[in-house]
Amino acid sequence: MPFSRHHLTGMKGLTREEIETILTTAESLKEISFRDIKKVPTLRGKTVVNFFHEPSTRTRTSFEIAAKRLSADTVSLSAGTSSLVKGETLIDTAKNLEAMGPDVIVIRHSLAGAPHLLSRSVKASIINAGDGMHEHPTQALLDLMTIREKKGTLQGLQVAIIGDIAHSRVARSNMIGLKTMGARVMVAGPPTMIPPHLDAFGVEVSYQLEEIIPRADVIMLLRVQLERQQQLLFPSLREYSRFFGLHPGNMKKAKKDVIIMHPGPVNRGVELHPDLADGPFSVILDQVTNGVAVRMALLYLLLGGERK
Amino acid sequence: MPFSRHHLTGMKGLTREEIETILTTAESLKEISFRDIKKVPTLRGKTVVNFFHEPSTRTRTSFEIAAKRLSADTVSLSAGTSSLVKGETLIDTAKNLEAMGPDVIVIRHSLAGAPHLLSRSVKASIINAGDGMHEHPTQALLDLMTIREKKGTLQGLQVAIIGDIAHSRVARSNMIGLKTMGARVMVAGPPTMIPPHLDAFGVEVSYQLEEIIPRADVIMLLRVQLERQQQLLFPSLREYSRFFGLHPGNMKKAKKDVIIMHPGPVNRGVELHPDLADGPFSVILDQVTNGVAVRMALLYLLLGGERK
Amino acid sequence: MPFSRHHLTGMKGLTREEIETILTTAESLKEISFRDIKKVPTLRGKTVVNFFHEPSTRTRTSFEIAAKRLSADTVSLSAGTSSLVKGETLIDTAKNLEAMGPDVIVIRHSLAGAPHLLSRSVKASIINAGDGMHEHPTQALLDLMTIREKKGTLQGLQVAIIGDIAHSRVARSNMIGLKTMGARVMVAGPPTMIPPHLDAFGVEVSYQLEEIIPRADVIMLLRVQLERQQQLLFPSLREYSRFFGLHPGNMKKAKKDVIIMHPGPVNRGVELHPDLADGPFSVILDQVTNGVAVRMALLYLLLGGERK
Repeated sequence: MPFSRHHLTGMKGLTREEIETILTTAESLKEISFRDIKKVPTLRGKTVVNFFHEPSTRTRTSFEIAAKRLSADTVSLSAGTSSLVKGETLIDTAKNLEAMGPDVIVIRHSLAGAPHLLSRSVKASIINAGDGMHEHPTQALLDLMTIREKKGTLQGLQVAIIGDIAHSRVARSNMIGLKTMGARVMVAGPPTMIPPHLDAFGVEVSYQLEEIIPRADVIMLLRVQLERQQQLLFPSLREYSRFFGLHPGNMKKAKKDVIIMHPGPVNRGVELHPDLADGPFSVILDQVTNGVAVRMALLYLLLGGERK
Repeated sequence: MPFSRHHLTGMKGLTREEIETILTTAESLKEISFRDIKKVPTLRGKTVVNFFHEPSTRTRTSFEIAAKRLSADTVSLSAGTSSLVKGETLIDTAKNLEAMGPDVIVIRHSLAGAPHLLSRSVKASIINAGDGMHEHPTQALLDLMTIREKKGTLQGLQVAIIGDIAHSRVARSNMIGLKTMGARVMVAGPPTMIPPHLDAFGVEVSYQLEEIIPRADVIMLLRVQLERQQQLLFPSLREYSRFFGLHPGNMKKAKKDVIIMHPGPVNRGVELHPDLADGPFSVILDQVTNGVAVRMALLYLLLGGERK
Repeated sequence: MPFSRHHLTGMKGLTREEIETILTTAESLKEISFRDIKKVPTLRGKTVVNFFHEPSTRTRTSFEIAAKRLSADTVSLSAGTSSLVKGETLIDTAKNLEAMGPDVIVIRHSLAGAPHLLSRSVKASIINAGDGMHEHPTQALLDLMTIREKKGTLQGLQVAIIGDIAHSRVARSNMIGLKTMGARVMVAGPPTMIPPHLDAFGVEVSYQLEEIIPRADVIMLLRVQLERQQQLLFPSLREYSRFFGLHPGNMKKAKKDVIIMHPGPVNRGVELHPDLADGPFSVILDQVTNGVAVRMALLYLLLGGERK
């Protein structure tokens, strides 16, 4: 299965075949991280720039580890150290980085569309590591990989996404990817957190968590962004947790083989009860492990893996 | 001499044989840093995560250089960029890091016991790079290595540790290590800086620097933590310097072959006179050089050096 | 052409032969960045410390990429994470770094003379990556390389430097380097930004941009340091732009084969019109590309390239 894309700016536009190529490649690269010598020379002499305008432990670290396991060189820039403090435009910064000959620029930015903007300005491959409330495609891909790994397929599965659907790039990228792969998506959350017209796109909307738990093969909780605007979107954390948190009480209604997912970091006791986060249904740490594999796959494919 | 530990959380519990194995390994690895090509392939394909919640030039850099000289890959996380800003618990952060397959997590944390906590939660090797007022074992090991290098042995030596014993993890780890290795420990400092009951553990306590200088084979000055609480523990810096600083005046009473140590960074003119910091008795820079060697040894041994 | 220097602290003192050796070496190393595998093993096992006390995207990244393309190991320290927050002196920090066995310390510091100070204290090679208002020699070298690349020679060229000459280390290093290489230097800017006595050193001074544009083979714009003191040096940005900015209006008077240079980041619409920054006369991105090559050349030469 050839892969001819040069950038990954979002899940939107990826075909089912392309997603399958990424997931299959990730599955085959995953075992490298379990070897005694966790490194292959595939991308030796390639330069990956991690350009993060928002703080992120796991995503940046995951990309950095993925690049190093393929023997690429990595350079990290964060908002604090970048020229943007000097007022340079994003495109100027990118063109300047580009002039140093990187092969890939991984970008996280608070501005929706920033990765797309860069992909039209630079020759290096751009990977979107999260842009505003728009997309977070590598998160969606690692989620798809984890579901496929646990369930064997994505086709026909019922996936429930719970929380602030309206402001979540994780939800958005997952909804797109899941639909493309033939899964059915249900969302639940307070009315203030559900965007209008979702049903028109084939997504089932509920304002009652109990209503969709019994039918879900996968329950994906979103993080309550305590530091953002959510205090305005529901009366209190306690109330959110009671109506939209997953806890041993409402889990009783779930399918026996349900899996629980979360993009992390988990607010324990808010959207997810600690016993469930650490319990047998949780695949949260598998998601993290698969994140490295998916990012290895993308670096490999975008840099023309087939040529090798 | 086999080494079967998986973590290094403190000097406490290390046997004399284990310490000797670490020091001997460090002595043999030290020469790598003096080669033209300062690199061996020993830990190729291993991943070392430096996870620092407190700022530190020398310790983080020392670990990073040590890892790279053994060809390991390194990833650095600092407090500012970590998910902890999002309120994640330490164990969750560690488990997430762990899921990315690191071989070693080096952690510095303001919370005493943080490394021990992690060592019970993750499969990767944990190395304590300083936890609150608890321990700083790699500092103690590089100090032991330096003393042994300069004096030939630790057995029977008189080591004076001067300063804020009560709040120093360096003092604590050194006292434990020195006693294990058969050295005798004397401490001196203002009464507010000496913890009670030290004498019950075989440590000689003095409140007069002059009293112990003449008997010391090694004088180890602690850093006055100007930025912390010490302003409350003695009347003024000038007074501290006069009574507990080492300067050419009180050095006249020292043994002719005494060595002066300091974990750095030195407050010149406070705990140590500049002429002595740079003088012939000072082994401060040897400590730094040995720090890289000790950390190489630990990475090597914890990752099962004997298997190689 | 042998190169026997151990440090690069400034353009001052470099002979024409030394500069030519650096440029010629850079020209030959430049193609590595255009290979499929952008990496040669030349500096394997060497350690390059990037020690940056001022924020800088492009200079730090450029050095880091240069080092990695030569297979050196890199460690980065920034002001925020360095011991200087603990009050250590610069020389102590440097001696401590030195004790860890780096081969090169690249330093950027707000204090003029800091690199020179270090070069007298440590055995590692020191490269000045910008010190206060003093020098920025690697910027000047990449500028010389770019001019020579585009014009074939530096001898006899007319180079106009426009802006705050008095407070610019880029201007200072370029003036020295250009004179050494036989170019003629003209400067223009508001009277408050032109240091006295420049004419005594053979630099032509003008307070009218239009006066020198027609004679310039190279027009180098300096960045208006919006975040610094310039608000006091001219009435308004608009006025600066009108009298000392390069825009399509005054560019009509320029030579047909003029090149436009800028050290970046560009304040679009202030010192340089966006159409010109992105237009056919601009060599700004060539400067960035050549920056990597020049830094590779310096690392190679300072570490005794001829031994290889």
